[in-house]
Amino acid sequence: MSEQAFVREVGLRDGLQNIARFVPTNVKIAWIEAEHAAGVREIEVASLVPPKLIPQFIDAEEVIRFALSQPGLTVAVLIPNLKGAERAIALGAHKMNYVLSVSEAHNRANVRRTTADSVADFKRVLVARDAVAPARRPKAVCGLATAFGCTIQGHVDEDTVRRIAAEVAEAGADELTIADTVGYAGPKAVSRVFRAVLAEVGNIPVAAHFHDTRGLGLANVSAALDAGVRTFDASLAGLGGCPYAPGASGNIVTEDLAFLLESMGFATGVDFAKLIEVRDIVHRAVPEAALLGNLPKAGLPKNFTPTSLVA
Amino acid sequence: MSEQAFVREVGLRDGLQNIARFVPTNVKIAWIEAEHAAGVREIEVASLVPPKLIPQFIDAEEVIRFALSQPGLTVAVLIPNLKGAERAIALGAHKMNYVLSVSEAHNRANVRRTTADSVADFKRVLVARDAVAPARRPKAVCGLATAFGCTIQGHVDEDTVRRIAAEVAEAGADELTIADTVGYAGPKAVSRVFRAVLAEVGNIPVAAHFHDTRGLGLANVSAALDAGVRTFDASLAGLGGCPYAPGASGNIVTEDLAFLLESMGFATGVDFAKLIEVRDIVHRAVPEAALLGNLPKAGLPKNFTPTSLVA
Repeated sequence: MSEQAFVREVGLRDGLQNIARFVPTNVKIAWIEAEHAAGVREIEVASLVPPKLIPQFIDAEEVIRFALSQPGLTVAVLIPNLKGAERAIALGAHKMNYVLSVSEAHNRANVRRTTADSVADFKRVLVARDAVAPARRPKAVCGLATAFGCTIQGHVDEDTVRRIAAEVAEAGADELTIADTVGYAGPKAVSRVFRAVLAEVGNIPVAAHFHDTRGLGLANVSAALDAGVRTFDASLAGLGGCPYAPGASGNIVTEDLAFLLESMGFATGVDFAKLIEVRDIVHRAVPEAALLGNLPKAGLPKNFTPTSLVA
Repeated sequence: MSEQAFVREVGLRDGLQNIARFVPTNVKIAWIEAEHAAGVREIEVASLVPPKLIPQFIDAEEVIRFALSQPGLTVAVLIPNLKGAERAIALGAHKMNYVLSVSEAHNRANVRRTTADSVADFKRVLVARDAVAPARRPKAVCGLATAFGCTIQGHVDEDTVRRIAAEVAEAGADELTIADTVGYAGPKAVSRVFRAVLAEVGNIPVAAHFHDTRGLGLANVSAALDAGVRTFDASLAGLGGCPYAPGASGNIVTEDLAFLLESMGFATGVDFAKLIEVRDIVHRAVPEAALLGNLPKAGLPKNFTPTSLVA
């Protein structure tokens, strides 16, 4: 049996939050259904921020309810705070993704509080989680954003990433996501940071969230795989771009990520033909968005066999 | 002192050979001059194929003569055969890049002979090289194309790459370039093939030529660096695309490659601001070509310092 690696779709949240045009609920639902049918088993389907902040997510509850109907799909939602956690719990989401910035400057700019205050806020989320009956209890994931540098303060200390990871894991996080929010990471920094974090909190899953802002996204995935990471966020067609640099790339592209993982011998369960068809749904909904990704333009290699089918 | 890694510009050859529009000689010269000024120290400036086959290179001799005037620049040319080698020698080029395909089917389609016949042809080039007085003797480089798979025959045997590498090195090649001509490689295959070749022919430089056709180009560079490779081909703005898939990427992008190398702690000597300015020259000459590359759109990270300036 080949080892598995996991693709988590974040385009419906991280992609759409950077798209001004409201994408109709039926399109979001069609996207989730089609990507689930293509073999993706975890989707961050919405952000539970107040709709007056990001109107794109005004239909979050309907989208989440649909996603929960898909067999075998892990339904994740972004939560900005305890109130978001309470909504996620009421809706029955499987995972609550809380995000704090390792960069103090970035955290203050984003949520007007210190990183330590955000850690304390995440601990309140954990208390809310623990009050839920075990059968309905969602997983609480802590995302550590700007872990490799920050557009505001520049340098981010690697040991601070390790220290915060240890603190939230000790507090009871079910899972961590280490994020290169602004595309500053290179493979060597990725290797150092993930090895340090995994050595500290190896008892819970640690995922990676890379942006391709400067072209190094998949090289960073490869480095993280070597360090032991097996779960990666990505956005279909790279939807969303980079909010800091118009025209530039944002999240790594789901299709290319899955191809990289398969090329390295990891079984992803992805059906590439079906996955590439999902781009049509996105294109019809957001025709002005560039559909990124190299694999969909070139097609699979002639000698390609999905890893799960190789002995 | 940081370790060095080397960026070789191939856009003037591999890029322009896929552009139908004739790029004026003064533009090619301006490109070479500007990229040399940006710190790139080796450029493949033309292909010495018969101009009736690729009219783009009808001005090859003038372009080569100009390039030879640039201090510290290694001037490489592609040669298709012994006649090309004789022209390169007469012009005083520093390097002659001969290319054969490891894939028999690809070699037959390209040059209508077996791979073994191409190896024999390369040996004739070596004889011609050896007849030149040492002070003017160019280096003979053997490129092994389709080393990771082929659009015609699909699979390419990894041990055949090692065997051909050993044979041409034994025959006297000054240098090898292992090429993923069609963008089939992934990091694990790259690691295996380069480690095997370096173990066999570690006494001469072995460079890597990757295409980003399916998005894995820079991940493959990172894997090749880990295997010990320090020299990489790339095309400014990814010029040229993929001749097999309209709209798809071809060569990896010089600007992003240099950023990857610097991010991994290798000194490239590249001045990024100057390098990015060279794109304007290419854009004015070939306005219909998409200028690829992520770094140029996003800019350098706020915390970036060139490796050569880090203690």
